[in-house]
Amino acid sequence: MTLNIVPFVSVDNMMRLVLQIGPEEMMRAIAGYIEADFRRWESFDKTPRVASHSDVGVIELMPTSDGELYGFKYVNGHPKNTRAGLQTVTAFGLLAEVDTGYPVLLTEMTILTALRTAAMSALAAKHLAPAGATTMALIGNGAQAEFQALAFKAICGVTHLRLYDIDAAATMKCERNLKASGMTLTQCSSAEEAMEGAGIVTTCTADKQYATILTDNMVGPGIHINAVGGDCPGKTELHRDILMRASIFVEYPPQTRIEGEIQQLAPDHPVTELWQVFTGAAKGRRDARQITLFDSVGFAIEDFSALRYVHDLLKTHPYSEPLDMIADPDDPRDLYGMLLRAGANAA
Amino acid sequence: MTLNIVPFVSVDNMMRLVLQIGPEEMMRAIAGYIEADFRRWESFDKTPRVASHSDVGVIELMPTSDGELYGFKYVNGHPKNTRAGLQTVTAFGLLAEVDTGYPVLLTEMTILTALRTAAMSALAAKHLAPAGATTMALIGNGAQAEFQALAFKAICGVTHLRLYDIDAAATMKCERNLKASGMTLTQCSSAEEAMEGAGIVTTCTADKQYATILTDNMVGPGIHINAVGGDCPGKTELHRDILMRASIFVEYPPQTRIEGEIQQLAPDHPVTELWQVFTGAAKGRRDARQITLFDSVGFAIEDFSALRYVHDLLKTHPYSEPLDMIADPDDPRDLYGMLLRAGANAA
Repeated sequence: MTLNIVPFVSVDNMMRLVLQIGPEEMMRAIAGYIEADFRRWESFDKTPRVASHSDVGVIELMPTSDGELYGFKYVNGHPKNTRAGLQTVTAFGLLAEVDTGYPVLLTEMTILTALRTAAMSALAAKHLAPAGATTMALIGNGAQAEFQALAFKAICGVTHLRLYDIDAAATMKCERNLKASGMTLTQCSSAEEAMEGAGIVTTCTADKQYATILTDNMVGPGIHINAVGGDCPGKTELHRDILMRASIFVEYPPQTRIEGEIQQLAPDHPVTELWQVFTGAAKGRRDARQITLFDSVGFAIEDFSALRYVHDLLKTHPYSEPLDMIADPDDPRDLYGMLLRAGANAA
Repeated sequence: MTLNIVPFVSVDNMMRLVLQIGPEEMMRAIAGYIEADFRRWESFDKTPRVASHSDVGVIELMPTSDGELYGFKYVNGHPKNTRAGLQTVTAFGLLAEVDTGYPVLLTEMTILTALRTAAMSALAAKHLAPAGATTMALIGNGAQAEFQALAFKAICGVTHLRLYDIDAAATMKCERNLKASGMTLTQCSSAEEAMEGAGIVTTCTADKQYATILTDNMVGPGIHINAVGGDCPGKTELHRDILMRASIFVEYPPQTRIEGEIQQLAPDHPVTELWQVFTGAAKGRRDARQITLFDSVGFAIEDFSALRYVHDLLKTHPYSEPLDMIADPDDPRDLYGMLLRAGANAA
């Protein structure tokens, strides 16, 4: 491969990868890459994402580097997009060599973000959910729902799903998509009903506002809450009283305190960093009555792990196209001469 | 055009654009876009670039937005790359709609950055250089040199160039590339010799270190200095004494104070912002004996202007390829269903 050509994984090729490998296997692999990268947390350059907010949404850049590879993701969040038939979240990402600054991978990341978000949720739950929890309430049945369901099946052994969405059509879509998954599915008519008998509850709703998907009375002892939807300033899903009763686990505190559920709490409210749970430096779940909460907002290292996985995958799965993205003059100081020669060749 | 397809301008297509339009005309046009955007400076979201430094170079993201469009550039700076036959600076960029977060343009920016950097330099000089200056010393004859030469010809009326580089081969390359430009070229054997009779001096060297390309005794009254090469922490080209005698003009002070020549000065040393010169709110050159200095580091709005120009250009010049970069399910909440249907179609 010549260095000036950047392999590009299109949406079509990402779908081919997912279909060939299988979404469950792919999320299991991504969770492995994330766990490995979180265990070497201190070797990463970390910065809260760089966000550009407007009235209707946000565009963000999420860079990080481990000193050998540099990765970033471009991602938007526009809740109103669905009304125009567009995605709420679209994304693409890039991986580059730190030594040269040359990109080595450009890829769609709308699908890949869905996979890595669900993989991260299930990875956190593997360390936090109550032992033997096989029933999960899944509240919010939009674009992220099926990925969450299959990641919890593959990584945590969840077999029963209790589905609820304020829009019954979303729940029907979700049930239709998961009917061949081997999971037992129950449609529920309220969030409260969905919680019945569930050891795990996943909230993944998309409104850009303070919402209260779960109220305090709905959350019994021992449950693990996987709060995925509250992920930007002004957007939360849980009532503050739940947070006060829960042990809270986060990815990167400087970002979560701005974007996560804990934006409702004091800036010094105690939280545990997941990377320390993964290394064993901090405890995950301590007892059967503890309420654990993963306040998921999504961090750059998770995208880095997903990019690294896809980059490795391309060695055995040739699902990329060559992109002529980097100028490559014969003499690197002769960029203008490259233009002149191109003109002479065309003449 | 469907929204899920992103037009991509490859290196080949960028060269076609430059060759068809001509580099001088293209830089004149980019300077026009930059001047227009700088004149509405206050409508932009501004942030210093987000840099990831390593021992051998830097990788940067440069985002900005005017509330309608959002743009960012990925750019690296690796001075040692040339030894391995690679570019010191490579770049690509993206433009997106703020309202939806959907990308509308992906383009190579190695060539485009060379064009916009030179266009910005000449635009600044149009406001700062002494009246009637037609001779420019060009010190550092690497990849950026010819672009600087042609931009100053097109925008400032420079007709004579005095070339110097510590590597004579670079000067010969530069002279060869410019021999059909209509400019009068003089090869010089020292920076001091290059300065003789020059009303403008452009320094564009690439070492990542404190260098002293110009010393105080070389700079006479009335000259305009266009310092392009010092553009990251620890990298400067001018002796501090020159800075103390000069009126200093900058793009975006919070970034220039970290990256530019003025990193050698006190953090409150007075500087003038170029956008204010362009609007008339601040004076450019005041008198014939004044030394003016454009401490160029390159700012995100210049890339935004260049991206906006290329985006407009594609309306009449069809030099792009469709890139399948944004997932586009029929129902935006049914991302997983899109995968299932792709699988069913493939079976």
